Amino acid sequence: MESTARSRARICRGCWDQMHVPIPIRGPLALPFRAFGITRSKMNPNICTICERSFRYVKKQRHISATATILFADIRGFTVLSERMDPVILSEIVSVFQDRCAQAVWAHDGIVNKQMGDGLMAIFNFPIKIKHHADAAVAAALDIQRSCTSALKSLELRVDKPSDDALGVGVGVHTGQVEIGEFSTFRSDFTAIGSAVNLAARLESQAAAGEILVSVEAAAQAPELMAGTQTRAFRLKGIEHPVLAQVLFKS
Amino acid sequence: MESTARSRARICRGCWDQMHVPIPIRGPLALPFRAFGITRSKMNPNICTICERSFRYVKKQRHISATATILFADIRGFTVLSERMDPVILSEIVSVFQDRCAQAVWAHDGIVNKQMGDGLMAIFNFPIKIKHHADAAVAAALDIQRSCTSALKSLELRVDKPSDDALGVGVGVHTGQVEIGEFSTFRSDFTAIGSAVNLAARLESQAAAGEILVSVEAAAQAPELMAGTQTRAFRLKGIEHPVLAQVLFKS
Repeated sequence: MESTARSRARICRGCWDQMHVPIPIRGPLALPFRAFGITRSKMNPNICTICERSFRYVKKQRHISATATILFADIRGFTVLSERMDPVILSEIVSVFQDRCAQAVWAHDGIVNKQMGDGLMAIFNFPIKIKHHADAAVAAALDIQRSCTSALKSLELRVDKPSDDALGVGVGVHTGQVEIGEFSTFRSDFTAIGSAVNLAARLESQAAAGEILVSVEAAAQAPELMAGTQTRAFRLKGIEHPVLAQVLFKS
Repeated sequence: MESTARSRARICRGCWDQMHVPIPIRGPLALPFRAFGITRSKMNPNICTICERSFRYVKKQRHISATATILFADIRGFTVLSERMDPVILSEIVSVFQDRCAQAVWAHDGIVNKQMGDGLMAIFNFPIKIKHHADAAVAAALDIQRSCTSALKSLELRVDKPSDDALGVGVGVHTGQVEIGEFSTFRSDFTAIGSAVNLAARLESQAAAGEILVSVEAAAQAPELMAGTQTRAFRLKGIEHPVLAQVLFKS
C-alpha cells in the first residue's frame, strides 16, 4: 500500500506513456488544467481525465488491440448476504471492499475500470505501461486478499447474525489480447472487451473465498509469485475447452 | 424511440424531482452552468452531472433506501462469440447494443447506471420519479428487444462464419427496495445495491435470447404489458427460495 503514497505522480502517467505529453495533475502547474476540467481520473489518481474520457484523442482511433492483464474481484456469497443483512452494514461492506481493492490496484499501476456493486474489473498495462503486467496484477490480487480479509473480518463482528460462511473475496486474473476503447456513443470512458476479458471474469466466478485463480498464460509471466501453486482445469460457461488456471490462496 | 426526442427537458429532471431545484441543461440558460462543469449526464441526457456525481449534495446522505425497478440486459452467448469473432465486428456489436439499449431506457425515463462490456444495468424511479416504474422498465425491455433484434441481425450478415445461434439479448426486470448512493470513497457516481438488484441480475442471466424475465413483483405492477404471460419458477444462484418470474417474448 505504501507504494501508492510513494508514487504520487506530478504528471499524468497515462498521457506520458501513450503520447509523451506531460499533463500536470499535482502541484501549482495543475491549477490551470483544473480550470478546464482536466483533473485526476477516478480510475487511477496518477492518470488524468484526458486518458479516461478522451480515448479517441489519445489514440487517434476508436479502439485498439493491446496485450493487457485483466483482474476481476468480487465478494463471495454477496447475493446470499444481501438477502439477510441490514442495508447499512451491506453498504459499508461494499464501500470497504471497493476502497481496499482500488488501493491495491493503484499500488501496482493498474486502473479500476469498472465497479459494479460488489465487484470490479481492473486493467493492467493501459494507459500506464507496465513491463511485467501479469506480475503486477497478481501482486495486486494478493494485496486485495490481504487487506480485504482483515477489513471484512472486523465488519463481520458487527453483524448480528453472521452467516455460517465467513465473508471473503474471489479474484480471477488473465493475460491476453483485448480491444480497448470506447464502445458506446454516449459514454466516453474507455473499457476493454474481448474473449480475454470474459475469461478473466469467468475465472473469478469460479474462485472460492480467499482464492485467486490465475490463468496459465498469466501465471507464466508471474513465475515468482506463482511458484509452487497447483494447476487445475476449469469448465467455464461459454468457453468450449477446459481452461487451465493456477490457484493461489491468500497467505 | 420518438419519446426521447419529444422529451428533451430544458431543466434537469432529476434535480427537479429530488430537490425542486431548476438546473438548466439545454438552451442559453445552460451555458453558465456548463462553464462550471455542470452538463448533461451520460446516464440520461435529461438529468445533469449534479444528480450523477453529487448524490450526497442532492440527498444530504451517503445513501437512501428507495423502491425502484432494476433492469439488466446482455448479449446472449457473447463469450462464445468473442472467442470466434473478429474484434472489429465484436466492437461494433457492443456499440450497437449499448446505444440501442440506452435509447430504449431513456425513452422511458430510466437511467443507464452501469455498462459492462456486453451488459448494462438500468434504474427506473431514481433520480427521475416515475409513477409506474415497473411498467416503464418492461416497456423499455420490449423496446430493447425490438431494436436490438433488427440491428444485430444486420450485423450478423457481415460476420464471415456466423455461429449456429442467432445473436440475441436477454433481459431481467425486478422491482423492490434498493440502497441508492455512493459506495466508494473515490468514485462519486451513484449506484444501487441490495438483494433486489442481485435478483434482477440473476433473472437476466437465466433469460434466453429474445426473452424478458420479469419477477412476479414487477409483473404485478405492469399488468397490461404482462397480460397472458406464463409464470415459471427459477432456481437462482445465491437465492434460497425458487423465484417466480413471468416470461415475455419479443414480438
